Amino acid sequence: MKVIFDTDPGIDDAMALLYLSKLPEIELLGITTVVGNASIADTTRNALFLRQKFGLVAPVVRGAEFTLDEVVKEEPAAVHGHNGLGDIDIPPVDEAGLHAGTASQFIIDTVRAHPGEVTIIAVGRMTNLALALRQAPDVATLTKQVIIMGGAFGYQGRSGNITPLAEANIHGDPVGADEIFMAEWPVTVVGLDVTHDIILDSDYLARLADEAGENAELLRQMCGHYAKFYMNVMGLSGVVGHDLLAVTYALHPEWFEVRRGAIAVVREGLAVGQTALWPAERGGVHSAWEGRPHHTICVGVDGAKVLEHYHSAVTRG
Amino acid sequence: MKVIFDTDPGIDDAMALLYLSKLPEIELLGITTVVGNASIADTTRNALFLRQKFGLVAPVVRGAEFTLDEVVKEEPAAVHGHNGLGDIDIPPVDEAGLHAGTASQFIIDTVRAHPGEVTIIAVGRMTNLALALRQAPDVATLTKQVIIMGGAFGYQGRSGNITPLAEANIHGDPVGADEIFMAEWPVTVVGLDVTHDIILDSDYLARLADEAGENAELLRQMCGHYAKFYMNVMGLSGVVGHDLLAVTYALHPEWFEVRRGAIAVVREGLAVGQTALWPAERGGVHSAWEGRPHHTICVGVDGAKVLEHYHSAVTRG
Repeated sequence: MKVIFDTDPGIDDAMALLYLSKLPEIELLGITTVVGNASIADTTRNALFLRQKFGLVAPVVRGAEFTLDEVVKEEPAAVHGHNGLGDIDIPPVDEAGLHAGTASQFIIDTVRAHPGEVTIIAVGRMTNLALALRQAPDVATLTKQVIIMGGAFGYQGRSGNITPLAEANIHGDPVGADEIFMAEWPVTVVGLDVTHDIILDSDYLARLADEAGENAELLRQMCGHYAKFYMNVMGLSGVVGHDLLAVTYALHPEWFEVRRGAIAVVREGLAVGQTALWPAERGGVHSAWEGRPHHTICVGVDGAKVLEHYHSAVTRG
Repeated sequence: MKVIFDTDPGIDDAMALLYLSKLPEIELLGITTVVGNASIADTTRNALFLRQKFGLVAPVVRGAEFTLDEVVKEEPAAVHGHNGLGDIDIPPVDEAGLHAGTASQFIIDTVRAHPGEVTIIAVGRMTNLALALRQAPDVATLTKQVIIMGGAFGYQGRSGNITPLAEANIHGDPVGADEIFMAEWPVTVVGLDVTHDIILDSDYLARLADEAGENAELLRQMCGHYAKFYMNVMGLSGVVGHDLLAVTYALHPEWFEVRRGAIAVVREGLAVGQTALWPAERGGVHSAWEGRPHHTICVGVDGAKVLEHYHSAVTRG
């Protein structure tokens, strides 16, 4: 499976990158970066750092600094630390892994080079994907599938994290996200409805570090910061592995319960960033959803299977 | 308990009115009407019809024809029939039960006449209550409590009915509803999060008609229409007793699980009519919720107890 990973590392992005480095089924073609969990300079630096650390060969490609809604958001230092990786020490990185050009152009070129073969896993704001679509609408039909981590549809009582209604990636670029959902490519949404079933508690992380060595130990260190946020704000004993779950979906969609329908994003106002599904089986269509293609959202997941799969992948020699 | 019942009958409104007629704990001071499940002419006519039928002595007071958002909505004939009561035959009504003046003025006068004693149970659009607040802001501090049927907060996976995000009463007047939540009176919200646990199936309704006689038989007839809607659109075998649950809450709040926090309503756009809670225990406050008083929302209910209580009340001699 050929994959472009679009990311804003980010602690759970790092979890997903370590996972990707260990999955022989996946051929990683590129790591495109976007502003989000930290500035574009920091997420790109972090991607280069993790690429080197985890022995990935795919290039890093710098992506969007500004989102399509043109609203600049505060960096979520309380969640991901000031450097995006939980304030662990990050040594100077080797820029040899950095590909020239922009993330959106890289996506266009790569998808066109492998028509019908590329899966895009996008776990940050949807800006790079939307820019690629704006520049080359043929990308939609040439892409095999898009799997995004983002959104919240009210299943399992889960509605939002950055506001009571909105999830952070979608809230971060509601215009970009809405354009993604208006395009005729197969999109699957792995949102808060399911990611909150993936809780990595301190025992799990310690076991991972014991068995998987230095890279898992690095994750454990990053998670110290992340865990404080989840404990203080959400009352959770453990950290949520949002982004890694989008990778699991690529390999094991059968572990997920899904719904299909048209998806719209609230672009402004109190509910800005909220995602809403008009279910395929529901009669009538409200004008806001009319004419939109049907996509897939995840509404349930076998969390135990995912945690076991992640553990067995990451501890693989 | 002194109660004003603000209503747009409406089939489940009729269920609630029959309930109110049988509860010795409640002294019904007035039935105020509002546009919603049918036109204001029809909801007022229906209130007069049901008042007479159920032997209620409280006056009916005609309320708002236009909502504060100034958007005229289509009447939900598919749900409540063309006459608001499932297209049962409604004979000409005796207008002697109709009180002169407006619903909002009646609310103001009644609350001022019994300071600290009046519970307002509002199960339609919030227009009359908001007009009362606009005309006489002191009403807020003089009212004992407000219990509304409306809204959906994403608990139990329930987000909306008229759109995927919005419940019909709030969607029907999002401006009125938002003003209700901005006022300093104790509001409890009985929304879709809990009302969808109150399913009256055909066996339940038939048993009610057998044991409670003609008025319950009338409900059963109205519900023929209502049941088709729930089966065809929601896939439910039975009808949802939304409005009656607001009455249950007045007597048995201990059967409900609740949350507290600031509530805001989306006033326009794709998510118009959506209700959102900023939980009291959550740190920080997004500007949209800032400075708003805390209210209570119901997020769980013992549905079996409610159905048993309704049955025993309605079959009471």
